Amino acid sequence: MRIGVLTSGGDCPGLNAVIRSVVHRAVVDHGDEVIGFHDGWKGLLECDYRKLDLDAVGGILARGGTILGSSRVQPAHLRDGVERARGHVAELGLDAIIPIGGEGTLKAAHLLSEAGLPIVGVPKTIDNDIASTDVTFGFDTAVGVATEALDRLKTTAESHQRVLIVEVMGRHTGWIALHSGMAAGAHAIVVPERPFDMDELTELVGRRFSAGKRFAIVVVAEGAKPRAGSMEFDEGGKDVYGHERFAGVARQLSTELEERLGKEARPVILGHVQRGGTPTAYDRVLATRFGWHAVEAAHRDEFGMLTALRGTDIVMVPLGEAVETLKTVPAERYAEAECVL
Amino acid sequence: MRIGVLTSGGDCPGLNAVIRSVVHRAVVDHGDEVIGFHDGWKGLLECDYRKLDLDAVGGILARGGTILGSSRVQPAHLRDGVERARGHVAELGLDAIIPIGGEGTLKAAHLLSEAGLPIVGVPKTIDNDIASTDVTFGFDTAVGVATEALDRLKTTAESHQRVLIVEVMGRHTGWIALHSGMAAGAHAIVVPERPFDMDELTELVGRRFSAGKRFAIVVVAEGAKPRAGSMEFDEGGKDVYGHERFAGVARQLSTELEERLGKEARPVILGHVQRGGTPTAYDRVLATRFGWHAVEAAHRDEFGMLTALRGTDIVMVPLGEAVETLKTVPAERYAEAECVL
Amino acid sequence: MRIGVLTSGGDCPGLNAVIRSVVHRAVVDHGDEVIGFHDGWKGLLECDYRKLDLDAVGGILARGGTILGSSRVQPAHLRDGVERARGHVAELGLDAIIPIGGEGTLKAAHLLSEAGLPIVGVPKTIDNDIASTDVTFGFDTAVGVATEALDRLKTTAESHQRVLIVEVMGRHTGWIALHSGMAAGAHAIVVPERPFDMDELTELVGRRFSAGKRFAIVVVAEGAKPRAGSMEFDEGGKDVYGHERFAGVARQLSTELEERLGKEARPVILGHVQRGGTPTAYDRVLATRFGWHAVEAAHRDEFGMLTALRGTDIVMVPLGEAVETLKTVPAERYAEAECVL
Amino acid sequence: MRIGVLTSGGDCPGLNAVIRSVVHRAVVDHGDEVIGFHDGWKGLLECDYRKLDLDAVGGILARGGTILGSSRVQPAHLRDGVERARGHVAELGLDAIIPIGGEGTLKAAHLLSEAGLPIVGVPKTIDNDIASTDVTFGFDTAVGVATEALDRLKTTAESHQRVLIVEVMGRHTGWIALHSGMAAGAHAIVVPERPFDMDELTELVGRRFSAGKRFAIVVVAEGAKPRAGSMEFDEGGKDVYGHERFAGVARQLSTELEERLGKEARPVILGHVQRGGTPTAYDRVLATRFGWHAVEAAHRDEFGMLTALRGTDIVMVPLGEAVETLKTVPAERYAEAECVL
Repeated sequence: MRIGVLTSGGDCPGLNAVIRSVVHRAVVDHGDEVIGFHDGWKGLLECDYRKLDLDAVGGILARGGTILGSSRVQPAHLRDGVERARGHVAELGLDAIIPIGGEGTLKAAHLLSEAGLPIVGVPKTIDNDIASTDVTFGFDTAVGVATEALDRLKTTAESHQRVLIVEVMGRHTGWIALHSGMAAGAHAIVVPERPFDMDELTELVGRRFSAGKRFAIVVVAEGAKPRAGSMEFDEGGKDVYGHERFAGVARQLSTELEERLGKEARPVILGHVQRGGTPTAYDRVLATRFGWHAVEAAHRDEFGMLTALRGTDIVMVPLGEAVETLKTVPAERYAEAECVL
Repeated sequence: MRIGVLTSGGDCPGLNAVIRSVVHRAVVDHGDEVIGFHDGWKGLLECDYRKLDLDAVGGILARGGTILGSSRVQPAHLRDGVERARGHVAELGLDAIIPIGGEGTLKAAHLLSEAGLPIVGVPKTIDNDIASTDVTFGFDTAVGVATEALDRLKTTAESHQRVLIVEVMGRHTGWIALHSGMAAGAHAIVVPERPFDMDELTELVGRRFSAGKRFAIVVVAEGAKPRAGSMEFDEGGKDVYGHERFAGVARQLSTELEERLGKEARPVILGHVQRGGTPTAYDRVLATRFGWHAVEAAHRDEFGMLTALRGTDIVMVPLGEAVETLKTVPAERYAEAECVL
Repeated sequence: MRIGVLTSGGDCPGLNAVIRSVVHRAVVDHGDEVIGFHDGWKGLLECDYRKLDLDAVGGILARGGTILGSSRVQPAHLRDGVERARGHVAELGLDAIIPIGGEGTLKAAHLLSEAGLPIVGVPKTIDNDIASTDVTFGFDTAVGVATEALDRLKTTAESHQRVLIVEVMGRHTGWIALHSGMAAGAHAIVVPERPFDMDELTELVGRRFSAGKRFAIVVVAEGAKPRAGSMEFDEGGKDVYGHERFAGVARQLSTELEERLGKEARPVILGHVQRGGTPTAYDRVLATRFGWHAVEAAHRDEFGMLTALRGTDIVMVPLGEAVETLKTVPAERYAEAECVL
Repeated sequence: MRIGVLTSGGDCPGLNAVIRSVVHRAVVDHGDEVIGFHDGWKGLLECDYRKLDLDAVGGILARGGTILGSSRVQPAHLRDGVERARGHVAELGLDAIIPIGGEGTLKAAHLLSEAGLPIVGVPKTIDNDIASTDVTFGFDTAVGVATEALDRLKTTAESHQRVLIVEVMGRHTGWIALHSGMAAGAHAIVVPERPFDMDELTELVGRRFSAGKRFAIVVVAEGAKPRAGSMEFDEGGKDVYGHERFAGVARQLSTELEERLGKEARPVILGHVQRGGTPTAYDRVLATRFGWHAVEAAHRDEFGMLTALRGTDIVMVPLGEAVETLKTVPAERYAEAECVL
């Protein structure tokens, strides 16, 4: 068999572990050939690739990033490129393509699969918001990094007698905020799924100070927003330099809380550090299993499918199903975190 | 409601997170009272306890060990003590008892439950061998510690051109060996579920050297044994000082491999470091959820049950079911690790 | 002997280790009594303190923050309070006061010492800018945290093909930037001691891309500024919400580099995470030695002095000397980092 | 200039950082050529080497081990090989050789230097026992690994109510034991420099239990021995399998303490994990500075010298001086650790 693999979208710890696993399983156990496309779908469209043998994937299991490079997918661009992709697949004699990526990548994968290309997808997102799998690799590492930061920030908040508003990743879903907030014992967790009421949040944090505590930690997902009318909120959030990326909920929340509570409040934005570097053991195992099972699915001619974790099993799920809805934090899970906003 | 909590058996990262969660949920949300028995079942039998309020569990979420102390359960001792336990429960006006522990503890919990005491168990073992739950807290931390050690040992094995035989915990099951071995890219993984054939193991490791590699890492669970007749093996494994604990499979395997391969081999025994210290974010979240749901079960009068993880949900499972069989590494999972012994 | 100890100024990993060491040495070895003032100099001025025995310092060696609390010193306030402080020292029968703090604290300590109070100072700053000691505790932890973040950011920068501008602490000196930048292999390091020329920096980073590299990491100390005229620079740096703390060199540099290079550039501001949490082993040893030697100095009546590391020895240095100048990064050390700006 | 570099002796975190630094400084800043000999002195004697350019040292700064391989030096073998080495140096047109290694390597380097070869040594040992430098790289990492293990073991010792005897590296000197023991708050530290009296050690640990504590941690350097006559001690220390490496002071001490105290005692042997893996930021900076200054020394024709840290400066020290004596733990440093044995 001849298999092409590619990584697409944002950085995510475990990408290299999937690549390595695909190569190990395919080359060693099945005697397949594997090639890796450079920079995501771009590599497929431009027929830019290299051969991946055992040496090529030596020592990458624990390394962050992706040895194949990545790029953000432009769906329109890809739609126009279906025939080009088909041509390259034929030309290279590929029997299977394994794209590893997030929501955008999987939509693209579904498109190509519908067009008849032999695709087995592997889901990837630190945000953990893909509905068809219990967990995605990268999430555990992101939560671990955020939790370690929160552990450190706690002693500082305490000694400075401050409220720290810590912004973690999560544009559409609050999984990282929920898990890191629970793991670090945050005093409030704010997620996009549930617009926060500024009065309630103020009261919640204020109650801590009334009870004699000297600090508070609020974890907020970058995509969280206040309930309409509960505070003035700059949605566009551009800063004085015109960069959209610098404004954000943590900063606005911090200003508002400081004014309302009369306590020093400071925002901390964890940023990219959550998505890079060595994956945790958990993510390496999950990524390795995904790679292994993607190769098996290809050998069983199960195309148009996605690897997914269900309980302790890896199962195959139709690509179309996987991209339908985002997996959001359900009310029960939010309730467990004991923060009533 | 009045709830008693206790921790029993070996150390396990996450115990304090459960205790804290029980207190938070019960005291803050339900207005319950919580007491903690000292040193496991001993505390219940001797009516040795203290009150647990919010202050008592402040700052313990990320701390290893257990603030309540622990002791190994003596089933016979406990059987004789059922009436004494019942008396103390009545005397203290307890509506629920939440024991947190491993197989032995849960068997004891089942016994007391059968005798009519209001028990909600929380499973605990770094070994991950309790059948009724997908995962137990403590396991992720143990795997993380072992993986980090393996990551470090790899560079040393390479620079010394050696075979390192790394013994990890797991008397009856190979979960820690399997996951840490997969996560670190071990070249062979040896588990108790599958007696190893010394000839095959030698050949597997030898093949690496034939292929020009200069080192190898073998991960072996402490309870692993050779296939009968495949090598001489000292099961009793006492050392010259008469300590049973020092012998072990890694040392014997190391001697044997060195002789057979003509390569330097060294055993490394990771030991207790796997079961102590700060839990990972994963374990803190799981432990916190178990504590939360144990309190909820008590409030629903669901006694004789055990908290369990199934997929992403916490469910309640009958205690009797939970202690029937050990969860061993199935053949499919072992196959994924790509080590054919 | 009766000793009072206090911690003042910003959070710094190792504060608790000093407190513990003072108590261990004084109480166990000398049979002294130790009290701890709450919230820095405020505690001394308001006679707010508690007794510190062995139990009080149990388990704090590895914990970040300070069990005594801290506050920023107001020199004017303290100057007015000299007589009050003297009164409390007499009233409490104190033979020695050990303030642990940074530049401001040490200036205050010098003032009180000049006024005749029996002071032995312990220097504390994550910035490492106190001239009389080779190193201050807290610095190694801050560098470690920044380096780990840089290690993680590298893979992300690479996979996103970006320039990342990482802002680390250091208002007046570039020690954290220099050491973390060297440790992580940053491609440019920008320090306050050496205003950067924007043309040179652009060329330096640009050369990397010309040479075929796909990303670059620039580490910049928060206090760094461009050479006059080399770029427009908003020194005040207030943001749209009027907060001085959010603007900063990294953001401005990022915007400028992106425009000049035509490559995506992103700022990452590590922030408070650098000054909190568990100290490294290095910082715990240094902090413990400082505490030990401060007690010894008190017992030798060596007041008006400061503990300092010189080579591998702890020596005592006059407080007046210690606060004269800031220790800046010398040209030779900057040259070693191989970044010609 | 043409420079040869080699790494010799046991694994040590920071070796790759030195190699990288030599290449960066020599190739980029001086326009030199650098070659790396394989497997230590063996590579020089057998003229087995490869060219080292910037690409060859890409991404190795934070990686443990050595990309050049290593081997233990056989001094006699090297003595016979002086002429062969001289021949290869001439043949390859080398202007300088930079061996990176421990005591044995530096003795060999001194020998070759005396024979007229242009040598600049770089000291390397996790044991920190080279007298001419304040610190050697690798030591900080080893202490960090040991401290993290001790942190974890503490909670386990406490929950199991045990004495743990933790054996760390240090055959001739107790630096790792001293620093990790201080950093983790061990209750006794046993070093080779000071044979321990078993009665005193028993009393010291026993006093803790008398004072109501439930556990104790003893850190012991692998080379520590009891005072003559204070207990039976098997110096040879072979185990039942005839391996010298498995016996050891921790195990014997554990047996003895358990008997004398009547408390459960267990040995934990940290082993190779202390010498592998990612170096700390401290070690990466020190290693980088050593490499930089070694190249500078070569360009100044300062041969027969060794890089050394004195305070915050890197200085050059005659090789002959460096190998005269071992740097042992002085009484004052031991006294600071507050363990009176």
